[in-house]
Amino acid sequence: MKIESAASESRFPIVQLVLRPGIIDLGWGHPSPTLLPVERIRHATTACLERYGFEALTYGADAGAGPLLQWLVEHISQTEGRTPNPDEIVVSGGASDALQLICTMWARPGDVVLVESPTYHLAVKLLRDHPVDLVPVPADSEGIRVDALATKLDRLRAEERSARFLYVIPTFQNPTGISLSLERRKNLIELAAERDLLLVEDDVYRELAFDGVAPPSLWSMAPTGVVARIGSFAKSLAAGLRLGWVTASADQIQRLAGSGLRDSGGGANHFAAMVASEFCTLGHFDAHIALLRNAYKVRCEALLQGLRQHLPPGCQVQSPRGGFFVWVTLPQGMDATNLLVRAESAGVSFLPGVRFHLDGRGTSAIRLSFSLYDPDELIEGTRRLGRCFA
Amino acid sequence: MKIESAASESRFPIVQLVLRPGIIDLGWGHPSPTLLPVERIRHATTACLERYGFEALTYGADAGAGPLLQWLVEHISQTEGRTPNPDEIVVSGGASDALQLICTMWARPGDVVLVESPTYHLAVKLLRDHPVDLVPVPADSEGIRVDALATKLDRLRAEERSARFLYVIPTFQNPTGISLSLERRKNLIELAAERDLLLVEDDVYRELAFDGVAPPSLWSMAPTGVVARIGSFAKSLAAGLRLGWVTASADQIQRLAGSGLRDSGGGANHFAAMVASEFCTLGHFDAHIALLRNAYKVRCEALLQGLRQHLPPGCQVQSPRGGFFVWVTLPQGMDATNLLVRAESAGVSFLPGVRFHLDGRGTSAIRLSFSLYDPDELIEGTRRLGRCFA
Repeated sequence: MKIESAASESRFPIVQLVLRPGIIDLGWGHPSPTLLPVERIRHATTACLERYGFEALTYGADAGAGPLLQWLVEHISQTEGRTPNPDEIVVSGGASDALQLICTMWARPGDVVLVESPTYHLAVKLLRDHPVDLVPVPADSEGIRVDALATKLDRLRAEERSARFLYVIPTFQNPTGISLSLERRKNLIELAAERDLLLVEDDVYRELAFDGVAPPSLWSMAPTGVVARIGSFAKSLAAGLRLGWVTASADQIQRLAGSGLRDSGGGANHFAAMVASEFCTLGHFDAHIALLRNAYKVRCEALLQGLRQHLPPGCQVQSPRGGFFVWVTLPQGMDATNLLVRAESAGVSFLPGVRFHLDGRGTSAIRLSFSLYDPDELIEGTRRLGRCFA
Repeated sequence: MKIESAASESRFPIVQLVLRPGIIDLGWGHPSPTLLPVERIRHATTACLERYGFEALTYGADAGAGPLLQWLVEHISQTEGRTPNPDEIVVSGGASDALQLICTMWARPGDVVLVESPTYHLAVKLLRDHPVDLVPVPADSEGIRVDALATKLDRLRAEERSARFLYVIPTFQNPTGISLSLERRKNLIELAAERDLLLVEDDVYRELAFDGVAPPSLWSMAPTGVVARIGSFAKSLAAGLRLGWVTASADQIQRLAGSGLRDSGGGANHFAAMVASEFCTLGHFDAHIALLRNAYKVRCEALLQGLRQHLPPGCQVQSPRGGFFVWVTLPQGMDATNLLVRAESAGVSFLPGVRFHLDGRGTSAIRLSFSLYDPDELIEGTRRLGRCFA
């Protein structure tokens, strides 16, 4: 990956990523640092401060920096064919901040929150910081099972409980890479509308469709109020900017933008949002996304090629069409945690599938991320991994 | 104030501040936009991206950007005579984000949170977004009453309840401008330590001591674990950067830095934090603070001079030694809300005192902010206000 740190001797680390010498770590679901548009962000900052002056540095509008909202509305309209009204979108400090604020503002103590299983493990950790009860909904090789969701909702109703929302990643899912089929999307939305269930759609990998076309978001397909969709610039621009957004109904957005947090502190990460708006309106976004799509596609293909070559026949590999992740089911119920011990000795690492389930399942699956490394290193990683099956 | 908007025709507002034509609005507790160091932040961004490259743009370390923490530790050590250990400090997305995360991570549903009264009204709004019970503790002309706090704690104990924390602004308070005396600080800390009460110290005006010397923070005076102190760059550098910090015990900090929010999204506002660290290490911080102190001192003096000249004798004016606010008690129990109606007709505005209380008190007090306007405008504001008493 060829990453050098400018101040690695510091008492305080600068970045979240920690790489261990000699280990190709396919566990990190981080964007590639070498693909970050450092020079263009510098330029966008200068242009932004020249254009807006103090307006980029004072408290931002509660719903988010106006120029960024303006660009987002146009971008969403063009790419998704649905235009959010001006009061149906809010800027957030990344997807995590959006989910945190949604929990604080929309959930009450004791509420049930449904999550597909497997799902993004750190979203689960974040949800567990709130006084809600998490209930898993199983997924299969095509994503969340709508029939199983209906059964869960029936059971909750029998217990006289209702779910506050379902947290779901329908597109290039973390950890499986799976995208829900169009039919399942329709069924999911239909069930949600029928049962008055809010879908919180984590949609942060949408821009990284290898062929440029992601499946339609649940939000773009659903009646207003059924889906709150979380978008993010973390994968498509720069995670360190801490910027995302939510599209939802005007009422739902008002509860976020009208929170005490925003009333007191103003819009999310105003300076970074103004810089991002300048980056986007200068036309850098589309060019950068095209570059990322190609780079990640090449990386994904390298990983898949290496896996075909080096994994034993009993492994089932899910090929994604976008995002960062490949999900592998191990042969004959092999235990992923045991495999991890051997893998780390062999100089490669990953996250075991159990980390992405709420209920101890996933013991014989692993998540491999191809986002961080060059093709050669990814292939070397699969070679090392393959040796652990011997 | 001479503020021009670069894009005022936008459908989406850029900034939070809304000024109404013809009204000198002393209600806004915002830093002066004309004092923002636009050019130096541009320079710091360029320097930061040259020095750190991708490290400024990827996920930051969970506790916050290393270089900023490093600078903060040295700065706090020099200015306060107490050095936080590396694990006793965390970066936040401003003071509001810090308080939000403290509520999420440290409080449980039904917990009592004590707040001095009057207090910062938007902190109250933020606290009310969480499932906690707010209980006011009265303040007098010297700040929060420690004897009244003891009585509240006794009452809670009798009800077999305990308070999760006390939210308090001991220095250049919002809304009163009052700083607790050294003796009251000692008494407050002693009581808190004795009763195992955590003090959450909102300390965002510290840097704006007109004579350069603020009273010691509660955090600097107290045994470890008794005080969690919230600092901020919103008033001292730029609110739009959305940056603050918390100093507390290692355990307390670990619960914030180890939250799902930070584990998922990395350190708070990493890009802005890296830019701020460069601004500070280039030596701009001290120079900028010196400029702000002088400017706000001049503004405060202008407001006080105007009030002396134009208010009727029955008004009691609290003279602050730092911060943004002057608290005025109206003559003979005059109603501030009625005064506000007349004031707005006369072209001046303020926030009535009742907004800063939880229990309907403060009806005959008003908060005037001198931060936003030039001296001439402040004096004109007091002239208009004075006419409303006639």
